[in-house]
Amino acid sequence: MARGAAVSGPRPLRVPLDEDRLDEDRLARAALTYLAEPADPALGALLAICSPAEVLAAIKADMLPGTGPACGDTPASRAALERALGRWRARLPSLPDDDRIAAARRDGIRLTCPGDAEWPGALDQLARDRPYALWLRGNADLRFASLRSVSVVGSRAATGYGGHVAGEMAADLGERGWAVVSGGAYGIDAAAHRGALAAEAVTIAVLACGVDYPYPAGHADLFAAIAAQGLVISEWPPGRHPARMRFLVRNRVIAALGCGTVIVEAGERSGALNTARHAANLGKPLMAVPGPVTSAQSAGCHRIIREWGASCVTRAADIIELLSPLGAPDALAPGGGPDRAWRPDPGAGGAPSRDDLDLDSARVLDALPARGGAGTSTIAVEAGVDLDTVLRCLGRLAGHGFIERCDRGWRLRKP
Amino acid sequence: MARGAAVSGPRPLRVPLDEDRLDEDRLARAALTYLAEPADPALGALLAICSPAEVLAAIKADMLPGTGPACGDTPASRAALERALGRWRARLPSLPDDDRIAAARRDGIRLTCPGDAEWPGALDQLARDRPYALWLRGNADLRFASLRSVSVVGSRAATGYGGHVAGEMAADLGERGWAVVSGGAYGIDAAAHRGALAAEAVTIAVLACGVDYPYPAGHADLFAAIAAQGLVISEWPPGRHPARMRFLVRNRVIAALGCGTVIVEAGERSGALNTARHAANLGKPLMAVPGPVTSAQSAGCHRIIREWGASCVTRAADIIELLSPLGAPDALAPGGGPDRAWRPDPGAGGAPSRDDLDLDSARVLDALPARGGAGTSTIAVEAGVDLDTVLRCLGRLAGHGFIERCDRGWRLRKP
Repeated sequence: MARGAAVSGPRPLRVPLDEDRLDEDRLARAALTYLAEPADPALGALLAICSPAEVLAAIKADMLPGTGPACGDTPASRAALERALGRWRARLPSLPDDDRIAAARRDGIRLTCPGDAEWPGALDQLARDRPYALWLRGNADLRFASLRSVSVVGSRAATGYGGHVAGEMAADLGERGWAVVSGGAYGIDAAAHRGALAAEAVTIAVLACGVDYPYPAGHADLFAAIAAQGLVISEWPPGRHPARMRFLVRNRVIAALGCGTVIVEAGERSGALNTARHAANLGKPLMAVPGPVTSAQSAGCHRIIREWGASCVTRAADIIELLSPLGAPDALAPGGGPDRAWRPDPGAGGAPSRDDLDLDSARVLDALPARGGAGTSTIAVEAGVDLDTVLRCLGRLAGHGFIERCDRGWRLRKP
Repeated sequence: MARGAAVSGPRPLRVPLDEDRLDEDRLARAALTYLAEPADPALGALLAICSPAEVLAAIKADMLPGTGPACGDTPASRAALERALGRWRARLPSLPDDDRIAAARRDGIRLTCPGDAEWPGALDQLARDRPYALWLRGNADLRFASLRSVSVVGSRAATGYGGHVAGEMAADLGERGWAVVSGGAYGIDAAAHRGALAAEAVTIAVLACGVDYPYPAGHADLFAAIAAQGLVISEWPPGRHPARMRFLVRNRVIAALGCGTVIVEAGERSGALNTARHAANLGKPLMAVPGPVTSAQSAGCHRIIREWGASCVTRAADIIELLSPLGAPDALAPGGGPDRAWRPDPGAGGAPSRDDLDLDSARVLDALPARGGAGTSTIAVEAGVDLDTVLRCLGRLAGHGFIERCDRGWRLRKP
């Protein structure tokens, strides 16, 4: 039953139990990442009323699926959908066949789709603009890393001051158990990723190109290091090159993925302010690091503090204090609602102890083998709980750092 | 009738018409600055129900004035008043006689009391904690300077960065017609005063000792320069030395006098944060200048931005933009209520043109001699308006920079 444990080879896929059930739709979502640009409003509208497989079939058949007035269909929106259909069909010739898409998944790259165990619920805040799917490269679990994560972004043309502060903050956040999300660019982004790596923490690079496309080229080694310890992720399929607009579209994912967004340095026209705007629009905590008023690279930070109400943060502790009331405990419940089985001290930002666990979670933790890993269903049988419960408990345990994903499913995390 | 014009000598007193009418009370207020520390709650309570002359007579007679249950009198408050009476009487032996107090006033020093034409209405926000009177040294008019003023304060142990920013900001504010209020201390205060002086603008040093007492001693020349172009003011009588608590009590006057308060640099325990607290408690705009997060001297600024909601300001234009909605036009009407006879562009922070003047103000402006000055009553007769109207119009005209005080009363200000 535990597929994760059954797959062999050097880089086995981590496919939880429930993911193969939807295989047709997951394959369709993968195909849609090839055909449409992310956040295409027409595709978002269609996916709100049809399954991904239905949408893909409609594109291939050049025939809109049966929408109607009940779905808010109007002549104007119908015309927009038809234009979109032409746009997507134009890319059909370059769409890899199903086998090649599956091959892309096995080449050290995996796919996660809405509803998958690894899908970060935070992205659902993007509503119709949420990614159709995400391509992932790396050894961390995206959902659980994002539960305690901070997006740290800023200018490519960072000053020595900005790079120093970004690196120190990211390292401090990493040491306190927070993942650092950024965009993989030169300057502040790279300093943030490197700071997290230095602290042996998880860091997530959200690219505006395929996860196998090293852009900027000078960051190929950095991306390899990030994949080894964290994740390189993208809405674009493997092989896709970056483009100017893609960075702006990508920024909404950076803003949505972190529990909050910190701008370390940004000139008045920095792209980092676009990420800041997304965070503000999503109603997520927006923070900025001040700097000398004589530095143009801090002017954007000062402006969003003054005019947008961004919080003025000077160190990791400030960030954690701001995020903790909204932090991991509530977001951990996959059921969606608040779950207050654990009440770790929000000020400390630390993980709860074993004694703080609810009964089911304690049972699931006990069911993990002392060495190596085990699949989800094996753990469920061993713990004597049903599959929904084991998934919920594994989520909590991973979010609080007791366990982590591994090739065989789940394993205890070294303290 | 115009006393200002009649007085002879090198440093004549500027006594407007209405000030001598209350001479007994003004002399009593001067005496009270010798006997009581500022913001003494017992004296504030007494002055709310008795005239200054009655209070002084009660102190001299060692008998509390006739308070009673109707005045909120209770056994506890009566005991506190009696203790206060003892405190004030203990200083009676060192109280100069009336002639010596009057002599202090003539020695280049003047006195202004609540209700006087030069009394800044902004201090009345301090309610019972307002100064009993203020001692002034200098050539500006306190009331009119304070109508468009910014308090700029910060650490004595300023960095080069902080001193540079304070000086530039103060000079910019001065060039745009704003007076700079500060505390005359080393560091940020001195840089702010010097910046305003360099811009040939009015600057006001609020001391915690007598206006003739050069503290710090190294600032004797600075205070002389401030007096020549602006004002050195104090709640303490001439000759009084500074003391630690006096700086804290003094800070409320700095906060109340400016239309807003800017903290340029402040360590976590800087006295500037006490001034900031006063500004916040008074509901006045509180601003702070950010700096490198690696600088301990900016830590207090960042904290009040983050935790107290201070506005993050980086240049004079930011400050003026924040203050202009609350700026001079409304505050100009001595009657107290809003006066919207003039509507200068609040964003520009500039003065209105002659064409924007209401009829009375235009008449009063026309009544001023082209050269030299004229007393208030002379102007009233010349303009054909009554005394209340001339006082109101002179206030407006001075607040907008058309006219200024001079030894003979009022004169046209050079554009």
